Amino acid sequence: MNFKRTKIIGVIGQGRDCSPELLQDAELVGYHIAQKGAVLICGGLGGVMEAACRGAKKGGGMTIGVLPTTQKTDANEFVDIPIVTGFGEARNIIIVRTVDALIAVGGKYGTLSEIAFALSFGKPIVGLHTWQNFEPIFYASQPDEAVEAAFKLLSSL
Amino acid sequence: MNFKRTKIIGVIGQGRDCSPELLQDAELVGYHIAQKGAVLICGGLGGVMEAACRGAKKGGGMTIGVLPTTQKTDANEFVDIPIVTGFGEARNIIIVRTVDALIAVGGKYGTLSEIAFALSFGKPIVGLHTWQNFEPIFYASQPDEAVEAAFKLLSSL
Amino acid sequence: MNFKRTKIIGVIGQGRDCSPELLQDAELVGYHIAQKGAVLICGGLGGVMEAACRGAKKGGGMTIGVLPTTQKTDANEFVDIPIVTGFGEARNIIIVRTVDALIAVGGKYGTLSEIAFALSFGKPIVGLHTWQNFEPIFYASQPDEAVEAAFKLLSSL
Amino acid sequence: MNFKRTKIIGVIGQGRDCSPELLQDAELVGYHIAQKGAVLICGGLGGVMEAACRGAKKGGGMTIGVLPTTQKTDANEFVDIPIVTGFGEARNIIIVRTVDALIAVGGKYGTLSEIAFALSFGKPIVGLHTWQNFEPIFYASQPDEAVEAAFKLLSSL
Repeated sequence: MNFKRTKIIGVIGQGRDCSPELLQDAELVGYHIAQKGAVLICGGLGGVMEAACRGAKKGGGMTIGVLPTTQKTDANEFVDIPIVTGFGEARNIIIVRTVDALIAVGGKYGTLSEIAFALSFGKPIVGLHTWQNFEPIFYASQPDEAVEAAFKLLSSL
Repeated sequence: MNFKRTKIIGVIGQGRDCSPELLQDAELVGYHIAQKGAVLICGGLGGVMEAACRGAKKGGGMTIGVLPTTQKTDANEFVDIPIVTGFGEARNIIIVRTVDALIAVGGKYGTLSEIAFALSFGKPIVGLHTWQNFEPIFYASQPDEAVEAAFKLLSSL
Repeated sequence: MNFKRTKIIGVIGQGRDCSPELLQDAELVGYHIAQKGAVLICGGLGGVMEAACRGAKKGGGMTIGVLPTTQKTDANEFVDIPIVTGFGEARNIIIVRTVDALIAVGGKYGTLSEIAFALSFGKPIVGLHTWQNFEPIFYASQPDEAVEAAFKLLSSL
Repeated sequence: MNFKRTKIIGVIGQGRDCSPELLQDAELVGYHIAQKGAVLICGGLGGVMEAACRGAKKGGGMTIGVLPTTQKTDANEFVDIPIVTGFGEARNIIIVRTVDALIAVGGKYGTLSEIAFALSFGKPIVGLHTWQNFEPIFYASQPDEAVEAAFKLLSSL
């Protein structure tokens, strides 16, 4: 086992109907993940996913997008490595299984499915403006606080 | 398209740590599904899944178990047709996509993931002693009421 | 474990560009599977899959179609139970894992993938006008011979 | 769409029962992929997969391993980014869908399934000591020739 493997942080959240504030927060989450040296993984599409990838690229990081569709051109332009599954929403499970910690930014029912899998698999999860009242989730109110918390949670693994 | 296709009702819920009352309710849900002429589909394992299948067989119905593992012998003994996936929790999505309506009986995080997918896909869903406060879910308090509601919801499709 | 579980035979083969002879053979394969009391499972779409399902219904049997798409209306009209996956070609693996024996009728690259998985998993497989020269495949030249062979192979499990 | 995205080359082949010559060839394939600036993706386990990753790291490249299991610790030590699926052999499809070109080095039935999917999806594929007689495969006899061919095939996309 490679103990020096780069940490992978997932960002999950809605792909559409995002307010400018939510997109700005997602971008800052991506930025801080990159600045702290982790790889960002997400669903590779628009909305929160695209904003987080944009932020990670601004922060000098690497981004992976796990796509539900069969075309790598469906990835947003800030995805460095599109993982093309063709498995639809089942790709959500791949994201959750791959991360060392997960940050949920906003989100609708698709994000709720990922939160449920993360809780089921015992993965550390931080929430920012997302589904409330899950006891194991650490709820942050600012992007930098969310990323800080995610790194603390993974460091305890 | 075959308009006379038999209706398929899914039963989701926890595989372990079930109270006797929960198992009894799950069995009654399965029984009434069968009595009303629908096929029961579930995750094929123990707990709520096994109780629901047992009930469906008592009710003279047919049962399908969509297994997460690679061995059909992992199915409980009341499963007529084990669908063997080897896809782990991704099999939850198959159950949700296949049903005409879904009944959640109890349930933990795995069940929450199925509820999230059902809400995301717009599938009718009835809840019995399960995750609360999802506006699109019809919450029932008795097994027969839950099955009645599931058939009403699918009949409006 | 339910030792009396009905046997499940899979029929795989191309969904398009089928000659009338191939379709007739596929239909006869489905017919004989049903007449001998097994459930037929296939990919649920057209071509060989539809012909086999048609034959099974003529033979009085039950048919399951494991769909790659997200809509049960994509199933051919002879499918009794559409299992809706949304997983694209990954549904091929579900068919192979679920069967007690597999019959390949014609087929292109998709069928080759299923043959490869069947050989990899050690599932009994019978070939009719399909990919040649795989040592573990029993090659038949007539539909009834193919079904006969499939039942013999599964009876040795 | 990001037209400057780094190219991704897949290496597929058996995970066990590898001769020293096959492992050496796999390592050289990985080395040349890295030297020519592409990312290597594979199934992340042992045998040909591990040898190819080792070569890629010697060549200064980046490696992605798409694991069938649920534990990132199952990845070989030369995998930089383990993508953890828990989907068993269905992960083969992800590899094929993700690559810009595929190189098969040796291989048994699992590799045959990946070849079948690559041919089905129209992905460029190069073979080295692998399944013979598929017309669309470019068969090479040396590792450097195989990598050279893979880059030529993807450049024509």
